[in-house]
Amino acid sequence: MAKTKRATTLVLRFMAFGATLAATIVMATSHQTVDVFATIFSAKYTVSPAFKYFVIANAIVSAYGLLVPFIPAESKLWRSVFALDMVFTMLLISSFSAALAIAYVGKKGNAQAGWFAICGQVPVFCDHVTGALIASVIGFIIYMSLLLHTIHTVLNPLLVGGLG
Amino acid sequence: MAKTKRATTLVLRFMAFGATLAATIVMATSHQTVDVFATIFSAKYTVSPAFKYFVIANAIVSAYGLLVPFIPAESKLWRSVFALDMVFTMLLISSFSAALAIAYVGKKGNAQAGWFAICGQVPVFCDHVTGALIASVIGFIIYMSLLLHTIHTVLNPLLVGGLG
Repeated sequence: MAKTKRATTLVLRFMAFGATLAATIVMATSHQTVDVFATIFSAKYTVSPAFKYFVIANAIVSAYGLLVPFIPAESKLWRSVFALDMVFTMLLISSFSAALAIAYVGKKGNAQAGWFAICGQVPVFCDHVTGALIASVIGFIIYMSLLLHTIHTVLNPLLVGGLG
Repeated sequence: MAKTKRATTLVLRFMAFGATLAATIVMATSHQTVDVFATIFSAKYTVSPAFKYFVIANAIVSAYGLLVPFIPAESKLWRSVFALDMVFTMLLISSFSAALAIAYVGKKGNAQAGWFAICGQVPVFCDHVTGALIASVIGFIIYMSLLLHTIHTVLNPLLVGGLG
């Protein structure tokens, strides 16, 4: 039973690793250069600090996700894994939210602020960004499931009266 | 000792409640109408979906923060408080990140995308947004401290081998 649980967790961790790695790569390789009214417009992730943050955050979480399964089962490092999982999941949702906010303006524009949608000009770039956002949110959902599952099964019995 | 800890936690929870409530109110009341080149430009939080999300998220976390201290000490609801704290802290950092990403474009613009900074035209609005972001991040830091403190003191001894 414990062995099945460990194997399931391991599979989920590798899936989360794959999702955040895909998000990093797809966003980092997003690039499209177009000629708009005789002006060269080059769209890539570095045009926005939010997209840069997204790439860095997903790269960090990928590195973490790759390393964790190699911690020996009896290592004291496992004491920190729950806290680290939580912190990196926060990093993931934070970078996702920032990138989504900017991607939304890129897609829809913002009439009041006078910011025009740019996805009509650079559709390939926008498709990459969309793909990266989807991959990242899959990674987030997996980490969130791991966290809530751990709380539910391992930690809950201890918590009554411990937080007041 | 347990009583002091409980009192400290309660004070921190009320501070976090105050911070998220302040963030909600300051963002929701941000409003400035200016006349730019004979065009009336009205800036308020509803111009951006990210700012709307920020107001809703901070209002939800405020309501939660107000209710939690009134849960009776022996209630079984405390079993869920750690998980709820975590989920609402994620909501907080997510809405903060989205709003910050948009506020940054408002402040600095984005030359490549052709999005102009608007804070020069509506400085009062931008000051409100900045204040709301600061209040919200204070709320986030308090909740994060509560979470990490709980993990450190209550939960850690259980975790070795429990997450593999």
